[in-house]
Formats: sequence, C-alpha cells, structure tokens
Amino acid sequence: MEFAITFKGDIDPKRTVALCRQAEVAGFEYAWFFDSHVLWRECYVTMAMCMEHTQNMRFGPCVTNPGVREWSVAASLFGTLALQSGGRFDMGLGRGDSSRRVLGKKPLTVETMVEFADAVKRMIRGETVNYGEDAEVQMPWTNGYEMPVWIAAYGPKALKGAGEAGDGLIIQLADPWLVKWFSDQAISAGKAAGRDMSNFKVMSAAPVWVGDMEKARAQTRWFPAMVGNHVADIVERYGKDGGGDIPTRLTNYIEGRKGYDYRHHADKDADHLGFISNDIIDSFGILGPVEKHVEKIKELEAAGVTQFNIYLMCGEEERIVAEYAEHVLPHFKD
Amino acid sequence: MEFAITFKGDIDPKRTVALCRQAEVAGFEYAWFFDSHVLWRECYVTMAMCMEHTQNMRFGPCVTNPGVREWSVAASLFGTLALQSGGRFDMGLGRGDSSRRVLGKKPLTVETMVEFADAVKRMIRGETVNYGEDAEVQMPWTNGYEMPVWIAAYGPKALKGAGEAGDGLIIQLADPWLVKWFSDQAISAGKAAGRDMSNFKVMSAAPVWVGDMEKARAQTRWFPAMVGNHVADIVERYGKDGGGDIPTRLTNYIEGRKGYDYRHHADKDADHLGFISNDIIDSFGILGPVEKHVEKIKELEAAGVTQFNIYLMCGEEERIVAEYAEHVLPHFKD
Amino acid sequence: MEFAITFKGDIDPKRTVALCRQAEVAGFEYAWFFDSHVLWRECYVTMAMCMEHTQNMRFGPCVTNPGVREWSVAASLFGTLALQSGGRFDMGLGRGDSSRRVLGKKPLTVETMVEFADAVKRMIRGETVNYGEDAEVQMPWTNGYEMPVWIAAYGPKALKGAGEAGDGLIIQLADPWLVKWFSDQAISAGKAAGRDMSNFKVMSAAPVWVGDMEKARAQTRWFPAMVGNHVADIVERYGKDGGGDIPTRLTNYIEGRKGYDYRHHADKDADHLGFISNDIIDSFGILGPVEKHVEKIKELEAAGVTQFNIYLMCGEEERIVAEYAEHVLPHFKD
Amino acid sequence: MEFAITFKGDIDPKRTVALCRQAEVAGFEYAWFFDSHVLWRECYVTMAMCMEHTQNMRFGPCVTNPGVREWSVAASLFGTLALQSGGRFDMGLGRGDSSRRVLGKKPLTVETMVEFADAVKRMIRGETVNYGEDAEVQMPWTNGYEMPVWIAAYGPKALKGAGEAGDGLIIQLADPWLVKWFSDQAISAGKAAGRDMSNFKVMSAAPVWVGDMEKARAQTRWFPAMVGNHVADIVERYGKDGGGDIPTRLTNYIEGRKGYDYRHHADKDADHLGFISNDIIDSFGILGPVEKHVEKIKELEAAGVTQFNIYLMCGEEERIVAEYAEHVLPHFKD
Repeated sequence: MEFAITFKGDIDPKRTVALCRQAEVAGFEYAWFFDSHVLWRECYVTMAMCMEHTQNMRFGPCVTNPGVREWSVAASLFGTLALQSGGRFDMGLGRGDSSRRVLGKKPLTVETMVEFADAVKRMIRGETVNYGEDAEVQMPWTNGYEMPVWIAAYGPKALKGAGEAGDGLIIQLADPWLVKWFSDQAISAGKAAGRDMSNFKVMSAAPVWVGDMEKARAQTRWFPAMVGNHVADIVERYGKDGGGDIPTRLTNYIEGRKGYDYRHHADKDADHLGFISNDIIDSFGILGPVEKHVEKIKELEAAGVTQFNIYLMCGEEERIVAEYAEHVLPHFKD
Repeated sequence: MEFAITFKGDIDPKRTVALCRQAEVAGFEYAWFFDSHVLWRECYVTMAMCMEHTQNMRFGPCVTNPGVREWSVAASLFGTLALQSGGRFDMGLGRGDSSRRVLGKKPLTVETMVEFADAVKRMIRGETVNYGEDAEVQMPWTNGYEMPVWIAAYGPKALKGAGEAGDGLIIQLADPWLVKWFSDQAISAGKAAGRDMSNFKVMSAAPVWVGDMEKARAQTRWFPAMVGNHVADIVERYGKDGGGDIPTRLTNYIEGRKGYDYRHHADKDADHLGFISNDIIDSFGILGPVEKHVEKIKELEAAGVTQFNIYLMCGEEERIVAEYAEHVLPHFKD
Repeated sequence: MEFAITFKGDIDPKRTVALCRQAEVAGFEYAWFFDSHVLWRECYVTMAMCMEHTQNMRFGPCVTNPGVREWSVAASLFGTLALQSGGRFDMGLGRGDSSRRVLGKKPLTVETMVEFADAVKRMIRGETVNYGEDAEVQMPWTNGYEMPVWIAAYGPKALKGAGEAGDGLIIQLADPWLVKWFSDQAISAGKAAGRDMSNFKVMSAAPVWVGDMEKARAQTRWFPAMVGNHVADIVERYGKDGGGDIPTRLTNYIEGRKGYDYRHHADKDADHLGFISNDIIDSFGILGPVEKHVEKIKELEAAGVTQFNIYLMCGEEERIVAEYAEHVLPHFKD
Repeated sequence: MEFAITFKGDIDPKRTVALCRQAEVAGFEYAWFFDSHVLWRECYVTMAMCMEHTQNMRFGPCVTNPGVREWSVAASLFGTLALQSGGRFDMGLGRGDSSRRVLGKKPLTVETMVEFADAVKRMIRGETVNYGEDAEVQMPWTNGYEMPVWIAAYGPKALKGAGEAGDGLIIQLADPWLVKWFSDQAISAGKAAGRDMSNFKVMSAAPVWVGDMEKARAQTRWFPAMVGNHVADIVERYGKDGGGDIPTRLTNYIEGRKGYDYRHHADKDADHLGFISNDIIDSFGILGPVEKHVEKIKELEAAGVTQFNIYLMCGEEERIVAEYAEHVLPHFKD
C-alpha cells in the first residue's frame, strides 16, 4: 500500500514544504495538489518548490483537466516538472470541475479527457503531436519521460476511459464496497480492451481524522458534499434509481441536496453541508481512533486499493501526518 | 544600474540553479527567463525552483504574452510565484512572438497586451476582474501584491503603451542611441498621459561576450537576427524609409534578410544568420575586453538605462557572469 | 514567552531537518542540541545542516562545556556557525556532564566555566585573548558577533556564576516553585554584582507529553533520573538536609537512587529509573491534556520564565510539536 | 582523473556554496577545506552547509591533524558529517602545521599521525577504541562507515606512513617529476608492507591561474613560500644536500628564505615571498593559457596522479572553475 497526501493549496508555502518533508520522512510516497487556480494558488509552482526540498516524493495534480491550459502549455509544464525533479511527476486527470466552473464553464467530455491524456503523454515523450484545429507540436528539449496518468472517475464512461487509457484510477471516497464497485468497472474495461491490468493502480482518496468522532465529523463533513457534485452529475445522466448501474448506496445520500457554492469548495464551514448524514461522512472518509484507520485501510487493500491518499485539509495537518506515521503506516510496511 | 541575466531555458536545471546563485552572490538583481514553452522548458516552474535557492534575486518572464495562457491562469501563476518568493516576481510582457508562432499563431495587438497587463495586475492585487466574454474572476488567496510590469516594445504603438501602462520598458538591444530613441518615446507618452515618469525603469537586454572579437561575433550573431523579426514587423507596418519615425540605423540592417526559422530561435548555429554584419553585432550586443563593457554600459546609463540585462545564452555562461562580477559590476556600485 | 525544542542527536538527520522546519513554521524560536559527542552525533554539524533549512530559528548547544574542545576550537566553531547563519547562534554552557563522564573525566569548576564563557565570547567578538598556559589567540575573520551565553545551573555557585556572567539561565526542570527558587538566586547575584537584570533570560527545559498520564509518565520517567545526577552533586556538596539552601523538595526524590549508567543517558528504557516517583515525574515535566500544558506554562511565566524548552526526545516528536503548535503556543501570542 | 577544489575558508559562506554548486555541476568531485580554525573559519560546519546544497560532491579537510581536537571529538565530527551526507566525507591528514603553530605548538610525529588515522577510522566504524592514557570510546550511533584517509607527506617517514596506512597520498605541488619521486616512495613502502597498492590514490594539490603569466605568478607566488615551510623541515631533518634522499630540485629553492609569518599563511600579499623565483612558481603550480593546464595535468596523470586538486584561493575563483569546466575537464572525460 502506498500512502499519499493531498493539499488544496491554502496552506502557507513554508508550511507546505514542512509538511512535505515531514510526510516524506514518515514514508508517504506522493504529495498531490488540487488544481483549481482561482480558488487556490497555482499548484505547479508549489510542486516545483516542494520538489527542491524532497528527494523521493512524487508530485502531481489530483486532478487537472483538459480545459484550463492550452495542451502544449500543459505538456511543457508537466514535462519540465518531471525533468527538474528527476522523473517525480504523475498526472491526475478529470473532466474539469471547480477550476472550470468558477470561470462559468462546464466539465468536458470523457473523450476529450482521454484524448488530452494521450496528447500530453506523447508530447512529453518527445513525439510530434497534432491536436485541435491546426497545432502541430514537438518539444525539442524533452528526455523521453513516460508520465503516469491517473484518471478520476465515477460514471460508467469515465471508468471505462480510465481502464482503457489510464495507468491508474482515482476514486474520491474510502468506502471499500464502492471503491471495488468502481474499480471493477475500470479493470473490466481495460481487460476488454486487451490490456494487462495486473499493474493497474487504484487510489482511494479521502479526508481522515484521528480522534473524537464528533469533532471528526465536523472537520470532514465538507467531503461528501464535494463528492455529491459528481454523484449528482452521474445520477442526472444515468438515472436516479441506478438503472442497474448506479448503486442505491451512492445515490441516496444526495436526496435533499439543495445546491453547492463553488466559492466554498472543500471548505468545512460552507453553508451547503446540511444534507450530509453521519453515516455518509463515516463511510466516505476514515474517522476515529487510529485502530479504525488501520482496519479500514486493510479493507481498502483487500478491495484492490494500491494507494491511500489523505485529503490533508481538515485541520491539525501536522498531527494527522504524525499519527499516520506512528500508528498507521507501520502496519502496511512489507 | 541594476544588472540582470536572462536564461532561455535550455541549460540543465542544476546548472541553472548554480548560475542563479553565482549571479546573486555577484550582485546581479534579476534573473529573467524567455517564456516560450514549446521551444524551451516551461520557465515558471524553473523560476519556482530557483527561488528556493536564492534570497533576494527577483524573477520574471522576459517576456510573456497575453495569448498563451488563459488570463486567470496567468494571474494565478504569477501571483503564486510572488507569494512563494516573498514578492520577488515581476512580469515582462510582449505581444507574443516565438511562443505563439510555433503554434501557428500571430502576435496580438498592443491593446490586448495593455488590457492583459491591467487585468493580471488587478487579479493579483485581489480585485474582481471581468475580461473576455463572460469570465469574472476573484482569487480569494491573494495578498495585495503590486506586480511590476515591464513592457517590451520597438514600434511606436507598443512604446506608447509601455509608457502609459508599464512600470518599465524592455529594449532588446544595447545600442545607446537606439535605446534612447526608443525610451524617449515611451517616457513622452507616459508624461503626455499625466504619469510621473521619474521612477520609470528602462532595461537594455543583449548578449555579451568577454574576450576575442572574432569569437565574440560568432557567439552573438544570432541576436540581431532575432531582433530582426521585430524590426521587420515595424518596418512592414510603418514604412522602410522610416517615415520620420523609424531611424535608418534600425531598418538598414534587415536588408537582405531572407527568412527566419523559429525552430532555431536564439540559436547561435541557425542557418538564417547570413545577412548580419559585424557592425550590427557590435552595436546590438557588448563584445570584447571588459573595459569595453564598462564603457558601453556607462553610455547606456547616460542614455537613461536603469537595468542592463545579459542574454546569458552564448556559451561559457559561468565565465561571463564571473567576468562581470570581477570586472564590470564594481564600476557601477554606488 | 519563547518556545524551544531540544534534540539529543539520535533522530535521523532528515527527520531532524523536518522537525526544525515544522517547529519554525509553528512559531518555535530555538532549536537546542545536547552536546555529548560520544553518546550522540556531533551536534554542531547538525546545527549547520538545520540552519540551511530554516530562516529565523536560533541554534545552540544545551549545553556545551569548557572541557571537551580546546577553547580556540570552540570559539572558531561557534563563531563560524554564527557567521554562516546570519547571527543565529547562542551558547548554552555547563560544567561538563555526560560528554566528559563517558571519557572518564569529571565536571569542571564554576570558575573555569565562567572563564571559558568570557574567553569564547571575546574571541568571537574578534579580541586577542590569552588563556591557559600560553595560547594567545586572535581570529582575523570574525565580524564582531556578540554571542548570547546561557548558563545551566542547579547549585549555589553555578547560579551565582550564571547571574554574574550569563545572558540567561538554564533550569532543567519545569516545577514553577523550584524554577523561581533557582532563578532568584541567579538574579540576586547579578544585581549584587551591579548588573541590570531586567533583560536576563530564564529557560525552563523539560520533556512534555500530550495525552494519557500513564503513557506520559512512562515516556518521561528518564528525565528526573537525569536531573538526579546534578541534584546528587549538589546534595553531596551542600548537605542533604538543605542547610537552608537546598529545598527538601529537591533532595527528597533522590533518596533510594542507586546509580546511573551514562551509556543510557536520557534514555526512557534505562535500568536506573526505579527510584523515580510519579509525583516527581509530574512535577519536573509537563504531562497530560493540552490544557494542563497551557496552565503550567502560564505558572512558569508568572515565576519569571522567558523561554520554555521542550526536551524533544520522548517519542512521537512530530505530534508533540503539532499539539503545541495548535493548542499551546496560541495562548502565548502577544 | 578526478578534479577537486580546495577552499581556505576566507570566502563568504554564500559564495562558498555557490562555488561548490558550480564546481559540482562542472564535474569536480571533491571540495576540500584547509583546517586551520584560528586563521580561517572552522571548516567542518562549512562542509555541513555545503553538503546540503550538493548531491554527489565529497568533502574533507585538506588537511586536519591529530593535535587540535581530542580524538573522540574528531571521530564524532567526521562520523556525523559522513552520516549526514550519505557517506561523502574523506579525511585528509597531516602532522599539524598552521593550526598548531598559531597556538604556539609544533607539528606532531608521523607515528602519532598514523595512530590517529587508525583510531579515528575505527571509532567511525563503530569499534571500541582505546587511546591516550585511559580513554575507551565506543560511539553507539555509527553506521559502519569506512572513512577514506589521505595522508599529506613530503619527508621520507611521512611518505612511508602514507603508503603503509593511507588510502591516498596528498602531494602539495604540481611538478610531475617531484610528484612521482614522492609517490614512488609511498607506494614502495606500501608494497613492502604487503599492501595491494593498485587502488592507492595520489593527489597533486596546487594553485592554478588561467591567463597572462605575469599576473599568474603574482597571484600564486604565495604557494611555493607555503610549501617552503615543509621543505625547510625536511631539509633541516634530512640534510640540505639531500643525502641521496632529498632532490636538489626541491631544496635549492628555499635558499635565501628568511622567515615566514603564519598570520599571512596562503596569502598572496604576504611579506615573506621575496625569495621565490619564477621557475619555482611555474613548476609548483599550473599557469598560463588553458592548453598549458591540459598539458601539465596529462603529465601528472602519466606520473601516477589520480586527483588534481585546485587550491582555489588566488582570486577570480568562479572564472577559474568556469575555465576548467569549459576547457580542461572535457579532456579528461573517459
């Protein structure tokens, strides 16, 4: 099991560096960043900064999308980060959520996302790539880096795309049953396309809180609300009753949902959190004493998860990393 | 007199850091980067890297343009760099040259450039900004940074824009007469618009070579060719015979020019360098023994230049910085 | 109230750097190191390393002594650290405990300690200094740094020396009554010598544990045992019944003490810890929920303490720093 | 051929770091430091600082001696540097020159030097070591590092000691004939003692100047004067006419020598430089255009030298490193 942390980009730069060092020393292997350049700081220059203060930790957006940066700009950015860090850059990719919505734009299609992944990988590899109407791009300075791509997905089409085109799948919740239900779809799609899926990676990303349950729920209630945006999209598209594809477990919790203010995305004090039940909070994150964390991550491991990624944005971040370092990670050392 | 260096982004990252440290210790105050993300590496993550290894040096693109990154993306990028570095970020800005041309696009208008400068400055300051068709952007994480903007200009309209809207002017050659001819236009425009121009900055940017003249010319011949692109634009637009506005001194040298391959932009071994005369090379850069450098920079100072910026891309870069540190900068200490 | 951490030099270098960064970001102002070069790593090169990764944090031994390094060697070492860090070096000083005992040597006299403090301060200032039999030393590279000296003391003579010659006093326990009893002696001696003691600093140094009391005692039981060495010295010299000078509170607890193995100095699993009662553990350190820590440090503040220094060597160090950052330091912000 | 630089510790810390980075990027493999703590800054904390800004460069004193630091202090210092840097520490060792003389002390015997090398190596390896009257030392924190030891020698006994006990020999001049004459003695002694000398390292250490010969001699004249101290020792001990062992080439040049002021050790402006002839300067260092440097280092290579070490203390240090990077090192790449 790999362990990761994710920043949303609202922590002071020096503290971000200190957290990366603390996490690297503790055995965390990845530091991911939300990519939503208006809401929070531009994550890529923060990654570049953190790379200078770490040696093995890998970095990447969790997630970027094809609709904010011109594709050659994205490729140059990611390829330069890989080059500067000695190959410590992965791309997490989605269809575009908050970073587009705050500009009044909608998510892009799964097809565009897959096309973008392919184009960017190839540009970073050094190939000549045609995309869009007329751009033909070859970056002469690349060094052949093979950038791993993780695709975030909830809906059937995105899961299929992840399985067919991704090196890994990002599932933004920590419910073992749902994680398995999602990842099975991606893996099946990959196999159907003739890929060897034995090294396919599955990430479960969620907030955690070590300590008292009441406080834990207060600190992480924002998370199911954020996930709710994606579920709402799926439900709207594929039918509220699941139609055989969407489990009731996933859709029920958005009943009563009344709106979402992207200005308070991933914010524990947002006003749009009323509809979230304790059951959902407990199910989507990992809360309580450290033993519960070990137990649930073991379940996730059994469900096929290869990386557990802490959404490190619920307060007391240094303590959370320290608790995991002392009491959780040692249970997953080989 | 401030001293600066400019990277074009083809030097190994570790060597780039070492050069920044060497230059900072030597008294150089700025490290600029060409922003042309396909030809060379993405400069902003390189700046972020270098910022971690310097303490006072300022960084910025020399130059970016309004047509490669969505404006809120640019604002978030620049604002984050300023925030990470404790306010050590300036923006150099042009109409878009190589970074757009390699994508098959043309430079943008002066109006767009000025509008972009204003929008980005305001977003970084924390204001709510409307631009384009419908984007309304406010970045909640900014800290009120006032980003200096330097505008690169050759033609009358751009010079006017620089004087009216810029904190500084970038002139990409080191001929004192021409520098003064350019900067006078910008300063007059600024005064005409009612601005106090007493703190207006004027940068002369050019390659230098300390040593034998023959070798010096071979190493810097690419520079007048590159500048020729811009001159060709001006001449085409404002008339070859100057029409009273364009000095013969500037236009004559592009006679015989036969084309320019952007794949070999700023490359000393490009094929398109045949038309460049020694007179022009000597006039546009600074070549020869160190005494000549001191003498010419004194002339530039007398012509109103406040920053001399070495285009550090002609070979033996560490030696060039060392020669300036030992033999040139001490003549300009207060 | 200043806050500090102290390393004993057994934490992995990269983790030491990470802890310094975490502590600096959290508002801790000093990182001290035990100076005992056989038992643990040589602390001065570790300080030099940590200085490169911090910007404001001050460093120093807590404590060094006059009998391990030739005095000019000590002066050059400390002066170089001050110079490299921009003046972020203080010297904590004692009579020589574990670092001499493991070499089969005894502590030195208070007179020697005071003479050493004076000689080293003067050498670092750049003066020509005579000491010992014939050495006359002037270090030509110094820059006039005024090195603060903190003197560790328990006994009457050392306390007098600290008050007369020190910039601060180090008291190695966190019992407010005892801290005041010690520091009053030092301050009185300083006043008697005609010094202005209004800026005299008083450090209380002790281990802490945030959490369950039983665990807290197990993790910090080594501390009163270590302090016991010094108390045993005092009792032996000045009389077990206090003779008016040594409070019963201090001497009682070493009754039943049976020996001490310096190979397990400051080690929570040492065999020589049997005689330590819970009362003493609770009194000498700070244990329990965060509220207890705030409360006791407020008492220390009222008793004249200007710096509380955590002996960061009881386990879960990152969590301890995080708990203090979140729940303790904010109560002492001006 | 390995290349190295040596600092004497009078260059500003930030510039020292910048030079190390520049040299590492250029392919230099070692940065050595003079160890003379009164004349210059304490080199070990400077090494610790530089280690944080380099990745592969090795560090060490060139040279330390057994008579300035208590042996366990030296072992802890060197062992900690090795541990912090991932094993990038070698020890250069001599009998004690300026660092002892400025304290009014004489060099120690070759026997003591060899005994020290053995004791320190073993302590760093983690062994229990007895030395001196009663000290028995075992450092529990060591990790088994095998520290390479280079021994500086001119006289027959020291050369024998170097061959018998060292991993390498330091010869402080760049005259190929003399270098071979010295190293042959060391290697023969090693073979006579039954050692496999095929990996024995031979360093030639000397100042260099790239450029005009007159200036070159002015900048490096101090060097034969410094070497003269050692030669004077040998001549005094083994006879001025060589007695078959000391070549006339070596002794002649100190005729006319009138004294040496250790306060101006390694100082190009010292008053004691009058007796130095141009022939000697040219022979002991490497001066003139870069071609001469390549040529002479090729001769040194043929004479058995495995590392050429630049005494980087003659001015324009960045330029010297840059000239070697561009024009000398490429001739010695495999």
